[in-house]
Amino acid sequence: MKIAFFGTGNMGEPMALNLLKAGHEVIAFNRTPAKLVQLEKAGARIAHSPAGAVEGVDAAITMLANDQAVRDTMLGPAIEVLPAGAVHMCTSTISVGFSKELAVEHARHAQHYVAAPVLGRPDAARDKRLWVMAAGPRGQVERCKPIMEAIGRGITIVGAEPWQANVTKIGANFMLMAMLEAMGESFALVRKSGVDPHLFLEVINGIFNSPVYSIYGKIVADRQFEPAGFRLALGMKDAGLALAAGQDAAVPLPLASLIHDHFLSAIAHGRADADWAALTEVSARAAGLDGA
Amino acid sequence: MKIAFFGTGNMGEPMALNLLKAGHEVIAFNRTPAKLVQLEKAGARIAHSPAGAVEGVDAAITMLANDQAVRDTMLGPAIEVLPAGAVHMCTSTISVGFSKELAVEHARHAQHYVAAPVLGRPDAARDKRLWVMAAGPRGQVERCKPIMEAIGRGITIVGAEPWQANVTKIGANFMLMAMLEAMGESFALVRKSGVDPHLFLEVINGIFNSPVYSIYGKIVADRQFEPAGFRLALGMKDAGLALAAGQDAAVPLPLASLIHDHFLSAIAHGRADADWAALTEVSARAAGLDGA
Amino acid sequence: MKIAFFGTGNMGEPMALNLLKAGHEVIAFNRTPAKLVQLEKAGARIAHSPAGAVEGVDAAITMLANDQAVRDTMLGPAIEVLPAGAVHMCTSTISVGFSKELAVEHARHAQHYVAAPVLGRPDAARDKRLWVMAAGPRGQVERCKPIMEAIGRGITIVGAEPWQANVTKIGANFMLMAMLEAMGESFALVRKSGVDPHLFLEVINGIFNSPVYSIYGKIVADRQFEPAGFRLALGMKDAGLALAAGQDAAVPLPLASLIHDHFLSAIAHGRADADWAALTEVSARAAGLDGA
Amino acid sequence: MKIAFFGTGNMGEPMALNLLKAGHEVIAFNRTPAKLVQLEKAGARIAHSPAGAVEGVDAAITMLANDQAVRDTMLGPAIEVLPAGAVHMCTSTISVGFSKELAVEHARHAQHYVAAPVLGRPDAARDKRLWVMAAGPRGQVERCKPIMEAIGRGITIVGAEPWQANVTKIGANFMLMAMLEAMGESFALVRKSGVDPHLFLEVINGIFNSPVYSIYGKIVADRQFEPAGFRLALGMKDAGLALAAGQDAAVPLPLASLIHDHFLSAIAHGRADADWAALTEVSARAAGLDGA
Repeated sequence: MKIAFFGTGNMGEPMALNLLKAGHEVIAFNRTPAKLVQLEKAGARIAHSPAGAVEGVDAAITMLANDQAVRDTMLGPAIEVLPAGAVHMCTSTISVGFSKELAVEHARHAQHYVAAPVLGRPDAARDKRLWVMAAGPRGQVERCKPIMEAIGRGITIVGAEPWQANVTKIGANFMLMAMLEAMGESFALVRKSGVDPHLFLEVINGIFNSPVYSIYGKIVADRQFEPAGFRLALGMKDAGLALAAGQDAAVPLPLASLIHDHFLSAIAHGRADADWAALTEVSARAAGLDGA
Repeated sequence: MKIAFFGTGNMGEPMALNLLKAGHEVIAFNRTPAKLVQLEKAGARIAHSPAGAVEGVDAAITMLANDQAVRDTMLGPAIEVLPAGAVHMCTSTISVGFSKELAVEHARHAQHYVAAPVLGRPDAARDKRLWVMAAGPRGQVERCKPIMEAIGRGITIVGAEPWQANVTKIGANFMLMAMLEAMGESFALVRKSGVDPHLFLEVINGIFNSPVYSIYGKIVADRQFEPAGFRLALGMKDAGLALAAGQDAAVPLPLASLIHDHFLSAIAHGRADADWAALTEVSARAAGLDGA
Repeated sequence: MKIAFFGTGNMGEPMALNLLKAGHEVIAFNRTPAKLVQLEKAGARIAHSPAGAVEGVDAAITMLANDQAVRDTMLGPAIEVLPAGAVHMCTSTISVGFSKELAVEHARHAQHYVAAPVLGRPDAARDKRLWVMAAGPRGQVERCKPIMEAIGRGITIVGAEPWQANVTKIGANFMLMAMLEAMGESFALVRKSGVDPHLFLEVINGIFNSPVYSIYGKIVADRQFEPAGFRLALGMKDAGLALAAGQDAAVPLPLASLIHDHFLSAIAHGRADADWAALTEVSARAAGLDGA
Repeated sequence: MKIAFFGTGNMGEPMALNLLKAGHEVIAFNRTPAKLVQLEKAGARIAHSPAGAVEGVDAAITMLANDQAVRDTMLGPAIEVLPAGAVHMCTSTISVGFSKELAVEHARHAQHYVAAPVLGRPDAARDKRLWVMAAGPRGQVERCKPIMEAIGRGITIVGAEPWQANVTKIGANFMLMAMLEAMGESFALVRKSGVDPHLFLEVINGIFNSPVYSIYGKIVADRQFEPAGFRLALGMKDAGLALAAGQDAAVPLPLASLIHDHFLSAIAHGRADADWAALTEVSARAAGLDGA
């Protein structure tokens, strides 16, 4: 397939490289040209504008930071140039509301739209081990499958409405934050009780036996929040996406509210650029640990 | 060792059987004599009162439901009969406050006290796969090690104060409840968004890769809360233990408060005897799912 | 002064009438012409478009439902026509973020901007008993004082940045919601305890001795939520404004989060058009009252 | 009537003095004899033990700090000496559970029991301006009316079960805490937005027009939390009573949970002896105000 690819950062670059390896033709665009060097070497064509990238393609893929970045890239001149019948496969974590808007806009242009957010970190992207949640019209999801197979190790198709994939991704991210909040409170309790947090983590690992608990538990027990694997400010954005999705569907999410409030307190104390696991420090401070 | 064993229910019976297998002498007591039949066959001596059970023993083990049951059993005539120098190893999930009281009472009687709550379900007790969290004076914990090794697959020694083991157990239970609350909210969100909860669970399992998430996630996705593996009313008791431990240590636990409130709402709607995973139904009701 | 007035509903009509009585020249606009009949009789000039209304005026006043309505009215052609040096006095309850945007836009057009939200219901508007919170450049606030005096009984000037008046209004509305949430929980507790809520209200009135508690307490005790004095959906919007203001300023507002979640649950159960005091029914439902 | 009076502190002393003025015969007891001097001068008889105080009386009144103090005073020898047919009128703020226990104990001794907690501060006690919430068997409440009329300005009879008066008092106290929590959050928001909190208070007073808001609002705006009018640690105790009452009745009280968590954080930061309005400082700290 002939594919335009937008957003060639930590996640996007390895994904696009995998598309090239799978034999697809890739036209890449990034506002920061330095982030295109590697791809050009690997055989991608480089475009100088979003509109330039989508000329004559079968599919356009967006791997961008948020609603605004996708809006700026796709809902300007590019959507006028993207051929009728082409499909926009959006792998970014965007809001439910904006995903619905994208569906409407592409329909107005006789184009197709599939939401396919991915789970996994940059190393998983490199190793083709991402997990893809896809939603959209059945035929279009099928059409995008070769793309998904080129970037991931598994696909879960969750529905016929693209935004259903976004709500699934948002729900999955929320499960991770909830784990962090629970760690924040329980580690504060055991630490203030004089129990070594690493011993507590040994017990937690004994129960859950999950790599996610093990990795994040170590960050929290060590209180080592720099450098950030995932910035706390982005974590708060995702908590906000959960609350917005809850509001759209009239589903109260009191734990998401609690987490969002704690992210906000972390930001009020200057931790926006720390790893999002620094959420746990809010519970420590509330308990008066470390003179905080 | 010569060991008095109190509480021979689903958990206690297999634990006591393992002590027998390991070559210990066991004197068992239960208020319900039927629960002693199996042990008697396996070679245990049966006592007819708590005081009768502890005569001349090296150690007394309690595997009872809550503070009150341990109080009724140990803080009556039994503590007067338990020999000076003997050790009470309490494996029950009890409150921090009561654990401190037990330490004082045993010291007054020149006896020793070790808290050693266990993690695992009845089948784990049977298979010697429990995880033991122990705390108490170092020498006494060492002394109890053969007992712990006879019932579990691993031991984490968390401190010199017995109640530190209790706070560790309470913190670990809280992590489980937090997972349930997070599932309650996220499953409500995806269900109301028309996404099949089993597909969402597939994604969750893809992230956490944890048997605990997998087992509880299936219960929640199936909404199959009977029969109860662990009764919701007991879950609320454990949430209360977390809040009480937090109050003792001046550690606010807002997520534990949220969970306790949701357990209470579940009980107000008649779910005391359901599995504690029915906590998740509270989020579904708040979202207006199922006409609730 | 020559004044353009936008939004002549329950609140705006009596405010504009009071401006006429005070001798001001009023040019009124409303998308629904029927809402202008009374004002025309009283001597107002009627405009057929926002841009038509602001030609040659000294001041433009907006009394509209929300950010979007103010945006649609003022940030289209009208802002191009509003004379340089004129002042926009916005009395609507709008978000802090949008208030900042208005300040920038009017500055770009060499116009002035004062935020002056008002507290009080339609009868208070009629009787000139509104309370005005004003903020903006000192000179412009002084310039608007005759307008404020014509519509209210008191003015509190809270700062030099217009959005500070909005945050004050939002904080004041939040105090009202908080009272409702507290009533919801306490009335649920006493009702389920078999205490007549009207007797409980007698005690509450004995403590607070406040007309607001007395009026809302009666609505809650009677459970008479129709017709709505203030729609619940609008109440949720205001809770959202509080959360957005908190996010802007990095101030966590956990009680506002709790209230927003409860408004959302009320909406999930079909109460969007009830009086916002129906927020209290969420606590009753969580307690299993009325088979809910 | 011949009345035994227990607890002659800031509240109890003026209440007992008013009983003397109304012509009742008062036998007073206090563990701290210095607190009896004033009453002896005014004509009270002084007892040297609780049991000594209740010999031959018609009624016993308790105005003590908490469950434990009432238990220590009344459920020892005193209850054996209190005549059959006499009534215990308990004006203390005690838990619902303990109030039920008192009813059982007095019934076992063929005595009567009326719960009659009071609202008001020491100066109100002095001026006979307390508000009394009474509950119990109708005949016994009637019998106690002369006592209530001698100490208060109004009586609300809330039910036939004594504990219903306690739940009413607990609910009323909760309304006060909720106001403090709302002030904590809204004052943090306006302060961090650069608005003078005294100006915000002016607006709040304009809405609520309540002496309670006015008095507490000034404490919060001034941030003057010493000396304590009512100690924060006692405020947390009352929040705990609300949660316990909610648990008894299966009524979730999420706002009470939030407040209890915030009281706990205040205590973790050393504010146990400050005025309970220092609850509001927890919201300021979470927002990062004052470098906290």
